Amino acid sequence: MKTNVVAHRDFRIATIDARLYSSFLEHLGRAIYGGIYEPGHPSADEDGFRRDVLDLVRELDTPYCRYPGGNFVSAYNWEDGVGPRSKRPVRLDLAWRTREANQIGVNEFVDWCKKANTKPMLAVNLGSRGLDAARNFLEYCNHPGGTYWSDLRRKHGWSNPHDVKLWCLGNEMDGPWQVGHKSAYEYGRVADETAKAMRGFDKSLELVVCGSSNSDMKTYPDWEAEVLDQCYDSADHISLHMYFANREKNTLNYLARATKLDRYITTIGGVIDYIKAKKRSKKTIGISFDEWNVWYHSNQQDKEILARDEWPDAPHLLEDVYNFEDVLQVGGILNTFIRRSDRVRIACIAQLVNVIAPIMTEDGGAAWRQTIYYPFYYASRYGRGTALQLVVDGPTYDSDEENDVPYLDVSAVHSEDGRSLTFFAVNRHPNTALDLDVRLEGFGNARVIEQVEMTHGDLEAVNTAARPGTVAPVNVDSAKIEDGRLRTGLKPLSYSVIRLSV
Amino acid sequence: MKTNVVAHRDFRIATIDARLYSSFLEHLGRAIYGGIYEPGHPSADEDGFRRDVLDLVRELDTPYCRYPGGNFVSAYNWEDGVGPRSKRPVRLDLAWRTREANQIGVNEFVDWCKKANTKPMLAVNLGSRGLDAARNFLEYCNHPGGTYWSDLRRKHGWSNPHDVKLWCLGNEMDGPWQVGHKSAYEYGRVADETAKAMRGFDKSLELVVCGSSNSDMKTYPDWEAEVLDQCYDSADHISLHMYFANREKNTLNYLARATKLDRYITTIGGVIDYIKAKKRSKKTIGISFDEWNVWYHSNQQDKEILARDEWPDAPHLLEDVYNFEDVLQVGGILNTFIRRSDRVRIACIAQLVNVIAPIMTEDGGAAWRQTIYYPFYYASRYGRGTALQLVVDGPTYDSDEENDVPYLDVSAVHSEDGRSLTFFAVNRHPNTALDLDVRLEGFGNARVIEQVEMTHGDLEAVNTAARPGTVAPVNVDSAKIEDGRLRTGLKPLSYSVIRLSV
Amino acid sequence: MKTNVVAHRDFRIATIDARLYSSFLEHLGRAIYGGIYEPGHPSADEDGFRRDVLDLVRELDTPYCRYPGGNFVSAYNWEDGVGPRSKRPVRLDLAWRTREANQIGVNEFVDWCKKANTKPMLAVNLGSRGLDAARNFLEYCNHPGGTYWSDLRRKHGWSNPHDVKLWCLGNEMDGPWQVGHKSAYEYGRVADETAKAMRGFDKSLELVVCGSSNSDMKTYPDWEAEVLDQCYDSADHISLHMYFANREKNTLNYLARATKLDRYITTIGGVIDYIKAKKRSKKTIGISFDEWNVWYHSNQQDKEILARDEWPDAPHLLEDVYNFEDVLQVGGILNTFIRRSDRVRIACIAQLVNVIAPIMTEDGGAAWRQTIYYPFYYASRYGRGTALQLVVDGPTYDSDEENDVPYLDVSAVHSEDGRSLTFFAVNRHPNTALDLDVRLEGFGNARVIEQVEMTHGDLEAVNTAARPGTVAPVNVDSAKIEDGRLRTGLKPLSYSVIRLSV
Repeated sequence: MKTNVVAHRDFRIATIDARLYSSFLEHLGRAIYGGIYEPGHPSADEDGFRRDVLDLVRELDTPYCRYPGGNFVSAYNWEDGVGPRSKRPVRLDLAWRTREANQIGVNEFVDWCKKANTKPMLAVNLGSRGLDAARNFLEYCNHPGGTYWSDLRRKHGWSNPHDVKLWCLGNEMDGPWQVGHKSAYEYGRVADETAKAMRGFDKSLELVVCGSSNSDMKTYPDWEAEVLDQCYDSADHISLHMYFANREKNTLNYLARATKLDRYITTIGGVIDYIKAKKRSKKTIGISFDEWNVWYHSNQQDKEILARDEWPDAPHLLEDVYNFEDVLQVGGILNTFIRRSDRVRIACIAQLVNVIAPIMTEDGGAAWRQTIYYPFYYASRYGRGTALQLVVDGPTYDSDEENDVPYLDVSAVHSEDGRSLTFFAVNRHPNTALDLDVRLEGFGNARVIEQVEMTHGDLEAVNTAARPGTVAPVNVDSAKIEDGRLRTGLKPLSYSVIRLSV
Repeated sequence: MKTNVVAHRDFRIATIDARLYSSFLEHLGRAIYGGIYEPGHPSADEDGFRRDVLDLVRELDTPYCRYPGGNFVSAYNWEDGVGPRSKRPVRLDLAWRTREANQIGVNEFVDWCKKANTKPMLAVNLGSRGLDAARNFLEYCNHPGGTYWSDLRRKHGWSNPHDVKLWCLGNEMDGPWQVGHKSAYEYGRVADETAKAMRGFDKSLELVVCGSSNSDMKTYPDWEAEVLDQCYDSADHISLHMYFANREKNTLNYLARATKLDRYITTIGGVIDYIKAKKRSKKTIGISFDEWNVWYHSNQQDKEILARDEWPDAPHLLEDVYNFEDVLQVGGILNTFIRRSDRVRIACIAQLVNVIAPIMTEDGGAAWRQTIYYPFYYASRYGRGTALQLVVDGPTYDSDEENDVPYLDVSAVHSEDGRSLTFFAVNRHPNTALDLDVRLEGFGNARVIEQVEMTHGDLEAVNTAARPGTVAPVNVDSAKIEDGRLRTGLKPLSYSVIRLSV
Repeated sequence: MKTNVVAHRDFRIATIDARLYSSFLEHLGRAIYGGIYEPGHPSADEDGFRRDVLDLVRELDTPYCRYPGGNFVSAYNWEDGVGPRSKRPVRLDLAWRTREANQIGVNEFVDWCKKANTKPMLAVNLGSRGLDAARNFLEYCNHPGGTYWSDLRRKHGWSNPHDVKLWCLGNEMDGPWQVGHKSAYEYGRVADETAKAMRGFDKSLELVVCGSSNSDMKTYPDWEAEVLDQCYDSADHISLHMYFANREKNTLNYLARATKLDRYITTIGGVIDYIKAKKRSKKTIGISFDEWNVWYHSNQQDKEILARDEWPDAPHLLEDVYNFEDVLQVGGILNTFIRRSDRVRIACIAQLVNVIAPIMTEDGGAAWRQTIYYPFYYASRYGRGTALQLVVDGPTYDSDEENDVPYLDVSAVHSEDGRSLTFFAVNRHPNTALDLDVRLEGFGNARVIEQVEMTHGDLEAVNTAARPGTVAPVNVDSAKIEDGRLRTGLKPLSYSVIRLSV
């Protein structure tokens, strides 16, 4: 089985926005408490942040981290999380039926971001609250001082403004499960007015409005058209979310679903262009794909936890243990974002620690890399620069849901300094190796720097605290360059990164 | 004049929901202050509750009591009524133009309910407030402890949660007089989102959404269709209200109006079925007829009180003094609820003490039973079990508003233990006795236990503090059973209860 | 050039509402701070109010003064401006990007009004807030005592209620620039519910709802139709705003724009009649033209101040320095209001001090009369009584925007006591004097009391602190009465007031 590819230096998709490799931390399960924050942990620093987790997060080099939700934000009072810890109220979180002691709030999160070498992307609550709470939150975070809210922040111990530039206006407001769920018109209106008030404070903010929670929503894609019709001028990005599952245990069907992600982006891209024309606007709204991942392994366990109806603190919710198969899926998702970097300017893996996350921890114990950590790591590290528009010619298959799905899922990124070229490749074929033959055009002399491969005899293999290295990349050297062609074999059901110097 | 009736054990309408005999107490006039609560009164208990009133309420055996409004609730801050009494704010109630000192709030009301052998049916404010205040109120009432709101309740002296299961989402939101009045769409939306947030706390709550304030509202019955279209899935009951008057002093017209009540229930039953089908729902929304009574005697007096424009404390508002004629009307209303127990699951007489109420008090003085106390007492006591579907064949009349109104208004209830059968009968004829002939089928040997009759030479006769026994039931023994037939005479303009052992 | 006029005692337009000469003070620039209030100023009284400004305001005899905005009000919390000054929060005003220290609030403003011989016309915030804050504000201001909010006012030192009868429900809610901007339907709904709640407190309030911000708004005049459709019954007046500019420096075009003002009033008058008929109402909603003036001189300077992006305190914003040409325009505007006193019941010059205002001050220095002070002064003083329906026959011109614009702009007012008759006349002709010939009918013997004239060789002449008398009225005596005819010459580009005793 063979696939021919042409990669030409001048045939570009877009300059990749580094924010494609952003992440997400919600007050949910053990993402915050027992995840990034565990004061009694052996590795905890002076602020109670786990150093072992910080190390793993820094390694991922994730430019922005979305916070504090997710569904959580839609009934969240940001004021609960500031001021002396002993006076912060304990709340019931209606989204995840959890007790929230508010020991971490915006100030601590911003501190953590600095340590994690990332930046905050903050969400305001447009569910149970609106414009007024949002503008106060913004002033609290970003004004230097001399006003009620900014002086309160200073009094709380943060004399410098946080200077948060990227804001989400609510979360999944199309979802009937959302506290204060809204119709597209209702949401578009409140988003527009909130956005204008926030810009009244600072014109230069980047504001993300809610698109669909997934492309199977009944309101999709009318939602996006109506919302943008209401707030095209005041918004910068529209948010999309999507999660992937392999409940029926059919690998080919599962891996084909990246195609659906691509179609989702295409559709909303079209909606953006339509409303842009209608508004006679010069600005093109971007896509912020600020929740994406595989999510299904923990569903049954979550059902049981929630059925206990006991309002626990930091329960083991959404703790998907990822297997090797998910490496291939996450690799395909990231390839899609790279290929659609013409539209997608921000993407946040959901989430970062413990909750459907690449990093897992034990309370009081170890932190380790889940299987999906690796494709995210490689994309974040080498997927910055210019996305190339490849010509791909190879065999395809029909899944139950999609036709003409290529066995080879591939993307290529020309680095910012122009000196390296990286291919990210997934061979979806269950039992046949794939001969990859890439014609390199316009790059001059190329040389293989490194070839990394992930494959495993057991699709269900996972990493655990006890065996954290079960699924891990290895270096191989099958790739050769000859006559301007890169040739290598890709094993069945494998994920590969091939880095060239050019 | 004769009416033949067939009562068959197996021809049933429905199992009667005991909540048909619920009641209502609003912060209005002297319902609370000087009604259930009067600390200086000779009969006051250690909490300031009048024991004489409690005795009369317990005698009525009313399963639920709606609180705190009514129109009052639509500008009410529930927090005003909790915490140390001396610190509770004095507010202006815009609904009834009264000063409200908030000396009774939800905690005291729940205490009173326990003493009165009833349970609270609480209303949240969807007029001047919304989802956020509602969820806080719910958490304050029902969460055991360990969170801000539940710990506040504990601090206020109520360590156990109130466990309130029945909640009204606003009051008469279709009425332009309501503070924060809404269109059907607006209300349906806010009710749906509030209901979902409240269920986020406790799935098992029973939630009542507002239907029409009466069947003459301009928006009736489109209101119900639109509201249910917005919140069918999140609601359990839809509320209807209706009041009766005999302003033109025409008894036959007046008593015929129970027919309108029946048609009202039929219409909204149809709307429920329509939206149920549209939503492909398995659930049938019930009717909560949570305000009903005769109301007109006090109108002129109220106009004068309100014209004084002085924001009084606990004024003598809505203090209808009921006459004997109203006994017949209330008997007919209760018969209608029994016959429509297929739809009506909750009904609240409005109200319980002083304000259009069966129980009346003097400040510092007596408490007594108004005329309408008695039909409510008998229905509450003997109207539980299974409502029978009677065949009734007898003479009718045409009123100015209704055709074919039967002179005999009758319902029959087979008790829960199956051992007794009770007929509630009103002879509407102004001057002719009615021969009642009931064929009893499927009951075996029947025996008359008791026959109670209310009649009076003066339709305008009333009970007062000085003469509390002017209008009262008497025992009679005209009823005979022979050959499986119950036969008795019903005097003109009389109310009768005939109880059989079967 | 000659214009013949007929003035007949019995041909009347309407009784002029004295509130036509109302004014406006917003928390904007130096209107409040450094305008009416400057504690360190040599003329400051014990409350910090500038006596020099008070003298000039009293001279204008302005019956009502609108407060506190304007755009400012739509994100204003009225509670910020009450209580001990040292505890009042410093806020960021998003409308004008200014720091607001809240040293003046409603109580101080009401005190100032008393000193200025005017009355407050207060605006509630319907941008970032709604019904609930409005009813609290109202109770704080107007309730004598014995409730939470009224006792708070008493505690703050104002034991007597302010008794504010005239209220604006929001400001320019049709403007996308407004914080919490609304659609016509959204605004009409919130205005209606807020109005009803406010009337629940006091039926006798006069309530002004927002019409268009100007007649070039995209939503004009549908806005007025929809808003009134929602709240015709609960409102008393609809607000219109309009500002005038001569950016292209074409005097004839500029002065012709009063015609557009007249058409604006005519159009909204028609909308009022249309909705009145639709609502079967007996009440005719009035027009409250509560922002009007010339505004353009300061635009460039304001752009520069706002570009500094520094959140200044009381910056020199909107400090138009008016020239002589503006006297003619303001004279024409006031003539229009007099002629349209059948519709316009309230008009507020925007604003009163420093901010596009007839009165200008230096910080720590002088206060003086701008050019436009004079036509406002004369109209306020002599423009009360009955507006006469004049027949005017004279030459006209076509401007770039309007056809048939008369060179003579004239109005006539018969005083309340019936003993004097005043003509306000503008000769718009750039270089030709105008012979005015008025036939006086039904007035008996007339005598000229006074003739005042404003003219200047330089249209751009202005008054400054150093030369406050550059543009000022002078007394002339060219007017003669003979055979029941008033005859006088009106100089080119002149403003005249001719007062007769009759």
